[in-house]
Amino acid sequence: MAATQRKIVILGGGFGGLNAAKSLRKAHAQITVIDRANHHLFQPLLYQVATATLSPADVAMPIRHILRNQKNTRVILGEVIDIDITQKQVVLADANPVVYDYLIVATGATHSYFGHPQWEHFARGLKTIDDATYIRGEVLAAFEYAERTDSAEEQRLWMTFIIVGAGPTGAELAGAFAELSNKVLKDEFRHIQPNSAKVILVEGTSRIISPFAPPLSERAKRDLEKLGVDVRLETMVQSIDSCGVDTNKGRIEGRTVIWAAGVQASPVAKWLKSKADGAGRVFVSADLSLSGHPEIFVLGDCAHAIDKNGEPLPGVAPVAIQQGSYIGRKLTRLLNGQPSNQPFNYFNKGILATIGRSRAVAQVGNIKIAGWVAWMAWLFIHIMYLIGFRNKISVLLQWAWAYITWDRGARLITPAEWARMRPQDAASCEIQPSSPPAASSTPQSPTKSASPR
Amino acid sequence: MAATQRKIVILGGGFGGLNAAKSLRKAHAQITVIDRANHHLFQPLLYQVATATLSPADVAMPIRHILRNQKNTRVILGEVIDIDITQKQVVLADANPVVYDYLIVATGATHSYFGHPQWEHFARGLKTIDDATYIRGEVLAAFEYAERTDSAEEQRLWMTFIIVGAGPTGAELAGAFAELSNKVLKDEFRHIQPNSAKVILVEGTSRIISPFAPPLSERAKRDLEKLGVDVRLETMVQSIDSCGVDTNKGRIEGRTVIWAAGVQASPVAKWLKSKADGAGRVFVSADLSLSGHPEIFVLGDCAHAIDKNGEPLPGVAPVAIQQGSYIGRKLTRLLNGQPSNQPFNYFNKGILATIGRSRAVAQVGNIKIAGWVAWMAWLFIHIMYLIGFRNKISVLLQWAWAYITWDRGARLITPAEWARMRPQDAASCEIQPSSPPAASSTPQSPTKSASPR
Repeated sequence: MAATQRKIVILGGGFGGLNAAKSLRKAHAQITVIDRANHHLFQPLLYQVATATLSPADVAMPIRHILRNQKNTRVILGEVIDIDITQKQVVLADANPVVYDYLIVATGATHSYFGHPQWEHFARGLKTIDDATYIRGEVLAAFEYAERTDSAEEQRLWMTFIIVGAGPTGAELAGAFAELSNKVLKDEFRHIQPNSAKVILVEGTSRIISPFAPPLSERAKRDLEKLGVDVRLETMVQSIDSCGVDTNKGRIEGRTVIWAAGVQASPVAKWLKSKADGAGRVFVSADLSLSGHPEIFVLGDCAHAIDKNGEPLPGVAPVAIQQGSYIGRKLTRLLNGQPSNQPFNYFNKGILATIGRSRAVAQVGNIKIAGWVAWMAWLFIHIMYLIGFRNKISVLLQWAWAYITWDRGARLITPAEWARMRPQDAASCEIQPSSPPAASSTPQSPTKSASPR
Repeated sequence: MAATQRKIVILGGGFGGLNAAKSLRKAHAQITVIDRANHHLFQPLLYQVATATLSPADVAMPIRHILRNQKNTRVILGEVIDIDITQKQVVLADANPVVYDYLIVATGATHSYFGHPQWEHFARGLKTIDDATYIRGEVLAAFEYAERTDSAEEQRLWMTFIIVGAGPTGAELAGAFAELSNKVLKDEFRHIQPNSAKVILVEGTSRIISPFAPPLSERAKRDLEKLGVDVRLETMVQSIDSCGVDTNKGRIEGRTVIWAAGVQASPVAKWLKSKADGAGRVFVSADLSLSGHPEIFVLGDCAHAIDKNGEPLPGVAPVAIQQGSYIGRKLTRLLNGQPSNQPFNYFNKGILATIGRSRAVAQVGNIKIAGWVAWMAWLFIHIMYLIGFRNKISVLLQWAWAYITWDRGARLITPAEWARMRPQDAASCEIQPSSPPAASSTPQSPTKSASPR
């Protein structure tokens, strides 16, 4: 029987890949999960690592630990660089190719700088543990630089934090950084007042957290402004350097820029030589397979799947989770000789975002909730979905601590991080004499402009 | 009054520097603490970060947070590169010099490779958070490489872990890695048996954990051997490469080498242009001041201070803690016009080391304890001395989890770590046909040999 077992290869151990693997636990197949990190990452809480509330280990768990009791599944650490769809094998950067009969591609998305990859050097995005600890170090170091300098102008630049893109991640980061400077760092410095730091949230469209209904966007904006966040709508970034950003409404000066604007699918379309939308997401059939390749499935942030109304499904965790489970069930049935033509159907349980302590917005069907009740729902649901009992307890402990003390437990800059951040970028900025955000203060470049969506 | 306040500068926020700062809390002085990390590190538990039980934030706390209520003290993040003892100022790598009236130097020690700095590339030491996460990633990645390869020889090399130096750190690492492979990783791999991994502890002298009495060394060695650790005494390392180490007793093959052998004081002697012992520790007077410079104090791992019997004090946390408090009290009195000539006296409360679960050795005066009671003492004392209530609770939680489940919560390899580890060092080794540790199997170099002390 083992000789006839089919090989199912799953690329990516995120929400999609992991749930595909789990729902294949009873499949008569050899399943291989490949990821370039050894852990599944609970991305909805990654911003809390970047803002020093949680430790990396609180939001990550080894994939092979999660799947340890699933004997039909092995896990390989490796980086996919190509897929050979004629030979049916996955090409890895540093190991032998892996052959498949069925392939499930769930490699997710990364940052997109809208054709300006050089911006990444100045504006890190938040997708991995490395990104989160980098941003954490960068923000904490900015306060250290401000404390050391005697120049009020330099202090102002170090204590201005610009977040580009006001989707849920950008809004959550902005709220958490505002609390950090207003409350957490209070009393700890001698030269600077951390609560005089400015958090500027820059958004290209006319409202924030656009997946939510307009009244909730408005509410979240007011909540952020109560925390001191400067929300600038219809402001499009034209260039980024180590001293600030240029926008269609003038220059915004600040040493620390964080990118939460654009997302680009991993290069799945290139690997599969298939068609993709503008964000690089591969077009898939109603059963999430690739047209002409019923043995290949693409899901999550790297797939362009459509709902019953023909609208593309959003790049959120619940979509990937449901898609992964769907494909796992479908393949299990197929291998049991019970093929099914049931298409994938997304059941939208609702969306949630948190804007600092005791503040959140929730939208379930037509029901819109904001404030403390939404916040409690946010806490409960995130703990519930977090994988691993230890992680649940540890996160609850860190949250309770942060709530009671206004402290954050993971405020670390390591010597290696400090040494890495120190050099050229810390050189002086040419400071413009008190720059108001007036539309005419910076000449607009007619060619190179990009709008955060 | 503020105009006449003296400036006290403390270099280093470790056990010595932090306790000096704390005991200066009532001094009429401007106190500045300078460190190149933003956190105080509880080094006795750092090996538990390297072995994936604890997160970095569990054993580290921002120095400015610890001292936040001490209004006479400021904290600066910066790297000391020199001290100008005539101008009385500290030179930083990347900021303006800092002037002092009194200087307390507590910059600790780093690894020493006995004149072979090139070994560091192959054998990381354990002193900082960066070192700990590096070693953690390296060991976890070794199992991943072993799982991926089909070569039994390569698997054997990846699953052999060589620890050079059997002081307390080396012994604690060996015990924790043996438990990791025997118990924690069990059931998680499909090609390899993690419990077939070998941990080899290499020691140049005739016994391990030499600060302890010989019967406790013997007991700890037996405890390690029960865990499967291969303890090799009187074995001196002559060279290290990416495939193993050469010793006076032959070659030991293994992909992962960890350095726990030598310690060298930070370059304080060079900065102060003063005399130092073989390990770079500056000779200090009975009051821990520098001869001819009553305004400069050196303590902890970078000082060569002697006890009542004329023996040099060991480089352990209690010495640094007591020295820091002593200097703080002395300076506080001095600034109050009550100078004191009381010399520093070390009160040895005893020493402790743990060898895996439920096993430890303790020595208090003439009392020697081993086993469960010593282990409980070890747990209790480490929790007690750990700074910060959140850290105490978090560490207790992680320990309880590890004890009950044999799981370890912080088993992370990030994509950046994996990308960094992948390249040339992962190339094939020239494997010698079954290499016994016979004395004659490798020609000894008469010139370049070094003995881990």
